[in-house]
Amino acid sequence: MIIIGELINSTRKAIKKAIEERDEKYIQDIAVRQAENYADYIDVNAGAFVYDEVELLVWLVETVQAVVDKPLALDSPRPEALEAALKVHKGVPIINSISAEKERYNKVLPLVKEYKTKVMGLCMSDEGMPETAEDRLKVAQKLIHDLDSAGVPLDDVYLDPLIKPISVNGAYGLQALDTIAGIASWKSGVHLTCGLSNISFGMPHRYLLNQAFLVLAMYNGMDSALIDPLDKQLIGLIKATEVLLNKDEYGMEYLKAARAGKIGRG
Amino acid sequence: MIIIGELINSTRKAIKKAIEERDEKYIQDIAVRQAENYADYIDVNAGAFVYDEVELLVWLVETVQAVVDKPLALDSPRPEALEAALKVHKGVPIINSISAEKERYNKVLPLVKEYKTKVMGLCMSDEGMPETAEDRLKVAQKLIHDLDSAGVPLDDVYLDPLIKPISVNGAYGLQALDTIAGIASWKSGVHLTCGLSNISFGMPHRYLLNQAFLVLAMYNGMDSALIDPLDKQLIGLIKATEVLLNKDEYGMEYLKAARAGKIGRG
Repeated sequence: MIIIGELINSTRKAIKKAIEERDEKYIQDIAVRQAENYADYIDVNAGAFVYDEVELLVWLVETVQAVVDKPLALDSPRPEALEAALKVHKGVPIINSISAEKERYNKVLPLVKEYKTKVMGLCMSDEGMPETAEDRLKVAQKLIHDLDSAGVPLDDVYLDPLIKPISVNGAYGLQALDTIAGIASWKSGVHLTCGLSNISFGMPHRYLLNQAFLVLAMYNGMDSALIDPLDKQLIGLIKATEVLLNKDEYGMEYLKAARAGKIGRG
Repeated sequence: MIIIGELINSTRKAIKKAIEERDEKYIQDIAVRQAENYADYIDVNAGAFVYDEVELLVWLVETVQAVVDKPLALDSPRPEALEAALKVHKGVPIINSISAEKERYNKVLPLVKEYKTKVMGLCMSDEGMPETAEDRLKVAQKLIHDLDSAGVPLDDVYLDPLIKPISVNGAYGLQALDTIAGIASWKSGVHLTCGLSNISFGMPHRYLLNQAFLVLAMYNGMDSALIDPLDKQLIGLIKATEVLLNKDEYGMEYLKAARAGKIGRG
């Protein structure tokens, strides 16, 4: 699993405050802890600051990369914020995000090409969020086709099927899993990812639904997720699922994680 | 999910001691707590007592059913112990177990027929434990066929594919899931169950592997398991998975469990 550490997000109160106060130490501490606990990418999001987002996203990139030797996930829907952040970012980041919406596609694609970034691809088109798994697969197919034709290596693409809350419709869980399995079955080379917690929106004990969904999504071919890497139970289930899916030879990674105290209760 | 509460098992030290001391209160307390927390059946096992198993299994049945209004899972490989327990049991128990081994089949089938019990069916034949998923499916098919021909309603049959430890062979997880999916695809009417914890034998933090496996097994069609119903995290994942699989309309059961404090941390 390719894990994107989700904690440095300005929609979280403590992070918003730390950004407002330019509290480097606070941000850096969270970045380091995520990097030490299985985060392959550190997500940075300054979207809560409507007027200063560009400047603050740049500040986040520089602040985090001053202490962490990992690429970041640059998490903004605004091309100007992405471009400013790309100019200071070291290494190959994931940018968030492109979609099949014409305007967004046309604005983000040049950044992907110019900076040779990896990119999140949302299964959304100008017709909005697809309702059925079938419609979602059509959007995914178009996005893969267009990116491939544009010369983007598909290994650089992280498709997000856009998980909808199970509290809205009981069928959304299976629909999401079917979409993931469908895209995975094409073996196009794209990665499959998701913002895990959408599934549980509006429900109590959300982490239970998130955990069960993550295990099922991995079984169906999801190989990346935006999660809290400091959650030992969640990381533990990821490592356990990799063992069960025979993707962790002799359980070496699982055993290493257990010995290091990085999985388990509390 | 049909949950069989596993706690009253004489291979557990505290239970063995309580049985030795005929500590009714201790046994009854555990029985009641399981019954109050989603156990549909209460497993009783006196197998640690080689010489007194028959008498002690009867004592367990009477002790538990004095306070709990649930059927039991009579957990003994010995027909004479099963029969003695059946004579005092109230309601319709599950007996454990029949298999495709000729001797065991011929000794247990008459009990199933005479007492109209439900029965665990182990996917094992006189050739031993099948190695591949394919062989396992053949044994399952024969067992289903034979029990059906003998007039046993297939809704009374709980097939256990016999999970083998992932620590022995990394392929055993997927093999077990494929076996479960294969049997479920026949839609014969049998239930699918397992002793969950075999999968994690020999590994640290076994509960993580058990939890991930249970979620995946449910996705593949398992509808029953022998577990600790007092484990709020495990029960929480079961309830969450039922929501995700659209088997819990409007999430009513999940919400009820959350409100009652029966799922969640700790």
